[in-house]
Amino acid sequence: MKRKGSRFERDLIEELWKNGFAAIRVAGSGVSHFPCPDIVAGDGKRFFAIEVKMRSSLPLYLTEEEIEKLRRFSEVFGAEEIIALKLPRKKWRFFKPEELGETSKGYRIDDDIYAKGKDIFDLKGLKQIKLE
Amino acid sequence: MKRKGSRFERDLIEELWKNGFAAIRVAGSGVSHFPCPDIVAGDGKRFFAIEVKMRSSLPLYLTEEEIEKLRRFSEVFGAEEIIALKLPRKKWRFFKPEELGETSKGYRIDDDIYAKGKDIFDLKGLKQIKLE
Repeated sequence: MKRKGSRFERDLIEELWKNGFAAIRVAGSGVSHFPCPDIVAGDGKRFFAIEVKMRSSLPLYLTEEEIEKLRRFSEVFGAEEIIALKLPRKKWRFFKPEELGETSKGYRIDDDIYAKGKDIFDLKGLKQIKLE
Repeated sequence: MKRKGSRFERDLIEELWKNGFAAIRVAGSGVSHFPCPDIVAGDGKRFFAIEVKMRSSLPLYLTEEEIEKLRRFSEVFGAEEIIALKLPRKKWRFFKPEELGETSKGYRIDDDIYAKGKDIFDLKGLKQIKLE
């Protein structure tokens, strides 16, 4: 299975390093028989297991399986579960599973939920600085 | 750059999961411009950044650069640095950088150092059970 998202994943890796996190892309995250996220990051205090998504527009739909896979990895590893979403000409936004909207088949991020998404400063645990 | 060691890395990933660690292989660990290990593992209490080596015989030589790369990643991430070594028909053995022998150009693991290597039980922090 070819991984279409690897350019975006590398972009997020850069962003994380710039903000004080050591971050790596997971090899074969789509094919491994162990549950695993797309990116793992840590800064000595906090550890994140990140599922990376990019869309041309909202809503973003996520399956139960995707969230469950992320949860199972995070529980054993000792990481916080994060969904990272990139929209065109927008900065990365970050969501915890409990912040997602529920659908009959899984989860979604619509405009309302997107507006409440965290940015990279929130992820660092710093006070959010509004530059936009 | 093709990664010859990925079969061994997958083998170690299996071993880690069996022993209570969530473990992932790092994508492009040989080519990324950020320092990164071959494997990252955690069990909620301990986090390991692992450089994976396999040899047909000892000694194993490691360059200063390899160890330095591992150190830089681990410092930011908040992981313990581990060198994992697989010899034919032997179980995995694990070494910390300070346990390696020094050479003029880097580090090595010879027979004496190999004999003192930790096994997967030590890595878990359990009392070592001698089965061999």
